[in-house]
Amino acid sequence: MGVLEILHMNKGVGETSYAMNCTVQSEIIATAKPIVEEAILKILCTNIPSSLGIADLGCSSGPNTLSLISQIIDIVHGKCNDLGCRSPELRVSLNDLPSNDFNNIFSSLPEFCRKLRVKKGAGFGPCFISGVPGSFYGRLFPSRSMDFMHASSSLHWLSQAPPGLESKDGLTMNKGKVYISKSSLSNVFEAYLEQFRKDMRLFLESRSEEMVAGGRMVLSLMGRSSFDPTTESANLWELLSQALVSLVNEGLVEEGKVDLFNVPYYAPSIDELALEIQSQGSFMIDRMESFRNGWDGGFKDVHGMSHGERVGKMVRAVTESMLASHFGRHVMDDLFDRYEKLIEDWYSNKNKTENLCVVVSLIRKD
Amino acid sequence: MGVLEILHMNKGVGETSYAMNCTVQSEIIATAKPIVEEAILKILCTNIPSSLGIADLGCSSGPNTLSLISQIIDIVHGKCNDLGCRSPELRVSLNDLPSNDFNNIFSSLPEFCRKLRVKKGAGFGPCFISGVPGSFYGRLFPSRSMDFMHASSSLHWLSQAPPGLESKDGLTMNKGKVYISKSSLSNVFEAYLEQFRKDMRLFLESRSEEMVAGGRMVLSLMGRSSFDPTTESANLWELLSQALVSLVNEGLVEEGKVDLFNVPYYAPSIDELALEIQSQGSFMIDRMESFRNGWDGGFKDVHGMSHGERVGKMVRAVTESMLASHFGRHVMDDLFDRYEKLIEDWYSNKNKTENLCVVVSLIRKD
Repeated sequence: MGVLEILHMNKGVGETSYAMNCTVQSEIIATAKPIVEEAILKILCTNIPSSLGIADLGCSSGPNTLSLISQIIDIVHGKCNDLGCRSPELRVSLNDLPSNDFNNIFSSLPEFCRKLRVKKGAGFGPCFISGVPGSFYGRLFPSRSMDFMHASSSLHWLSQAPPGLESKDGLTMNKGKVYISKSSLSNVFEAYLEQFRKDMRLFLESRSEEMVAGGRMVLSLMGRSSFDPTTESANLWELLSQALVSLVNEGLVEEGKVDLFNVPYYAPSIDELALEIQSQGSFMIDRMESFRNGWDGGFKDVHGMSHGERVGKMVRAVTESMLASHFGRHVMDDLFDRYEKLIEDWYSNKNKTENLCVVVSLIRKD
Repeated sequence: MGVLEILHMNKGVGETSYAMNCTVQSEIIATAKPIVEEAILKILCTNIPSSLGIADLGCSSGPNTLSLISQIIDIVHGKCNDLGCRSPELRVSLNDLPSNDFNNIFSSLPEFCRKLRVKKGAGFGPCFISGVPGSFYGRLFPSRSMDFMHASSSLHWLSQAPPGLESKDGLTMNKGKVYISKSSLSNVFEAYLEQFRKDMRLFLESRSEEMVAGGRMVLSLMGRSSFDPTTESANLWELLSQALVSLVNEGLVEEGKVDLFNVPYYAPSIDELALEIQSQGSFMIDRMESFRNGWDGGFKDVHGMSHGERVGKMVRAVTESMLASHFGRHVMDDLFDRYEKLIEDWYSNKNKTENLCVVVSLIRKD
């Protein structure tokens, strides 16, 4: 099974759910908000269209999904109020992979829309919200139908783990590791970069077909500040590799399973990202920024959890579907117990515990 | 909680699921197919648009949902092949209430689309499928965005049970019954008819905003052949009332609960339906037909089930969410055991066991 079938945030609202462990992603949305606001206001500054197509790519489910939509609606409504004109008809598309928990989003929509009507009053234009299941590495929406697109904390997921990490005689090139590591062969980095380039090109080509000329897109994704791909978020994967290897050492997981597993993830450097956008050619970079955010999403010990627990649960909420599919559901509790301890040690040893998040605001060329 | 929150077909694929008990609805789709085909071909006969907006209203989940979409795609693709031109971009919207099992539909889409690409070849597409949660008694889609809409076995569900079936002093007007019955006071019929009229008007007004001029809509719903509202499918509700009253008689359900419960359902006569369409005024009736279908959906005893079991399970799959919400989940097994026996007796006594299904094909006036 590919990423399409197995990658989804943990469902529901329990202890290991994404809904309860998405503080980091929520922080990223909050930090990128002024850039989203600027992009939308620039769309509205030339004229207020009668209908506005908006998409959130990789919307996931949980509190973040509708908070982003709510922000966008506030911006559009506020601007129209300032100008004394009627809000456009809003066509909001929530996209994620087919295995995303759309039922969870949809069940909260009646209350969301009721509150919206109360808050915005009669002048607020109709808002049509739909769910669009599918990979954003391919077409999702009708031609020239979108004015603004947004992808937060989703584009660092590749369409697949890079092929070719297994050599012809069945030996793997990334032994004991799940991502690019200091001990990985150099081909591992190249394979990841190549997959990122292919995917990003497909993403941009697809979006360019779907957007109107002058339409805008804000993407925020995990990145890195240096050429070295083993920095920042790569350390989180390094610790996960260590947790897996400790299970191998105790005979709880087969060694070959770890060697064969590589995460479909890539945190590009700012240069790599800019280069792909420029070389694909459909979009102009209006603004590009990066900021650091803590692994624990501004954790202040309010829930009585250690850093290790907090970060471990966040990674679990995001990666468990994938890891369980490869290693088996039965080792998940043990794996994440070990992982949390390794993260805790990492913190204790005063290592760096920050990710780099890159935000880029793009304009569809005419 | 209103119909919006509680009415949904039974989820999953278990014994009591809608997916396993939707033969009647499947039979209706099959019978109406030539009318759907005619409507779509008439849309395509003037010109092949570059993009075609199609909606299935009350799509539910299970095998019927995608079989209908598949039929429509076949018709469009076949016609374009005959003409030697490229298929239009298809925008397919699957609508149902927010509590519908959209996850179930979405998880089957990758395989559905894969098969479609294999079957249709390179000349096909693209086809964009989205889920639109919400009540069709209100706006669902952007203005003038739809070319063809379809609603099968869904429009006989009202937006709510008719208000006013409770008199001012708290006495109910429909004691011991869940639908219009021969023993109901005449106001009961009037209240139902009034609710149907309001809902149908709202439905037609909403769709008229959403459709392009010349767009077409095929609606198939339970109806009746005579003025008497206690015929055909009303007998199924009469037997359900009897099953509930037998629970009351044994002290398993409170009498008041049955008195207060009325199904949000109405099977209009052909005249009532035609009158509402004409009086709302946005649509022209191109074709209107009715046909009879058995309560058991052409059941041939292949599964070793009696008529009573078969029909009982079908009604259960459709109504359980609503009944469980009002009477409690704990009485459902007992209720449907009794219901199945009553249906079996009804069959044994050579009573009529047919519904009337009305199909109407409409054209959006210019």
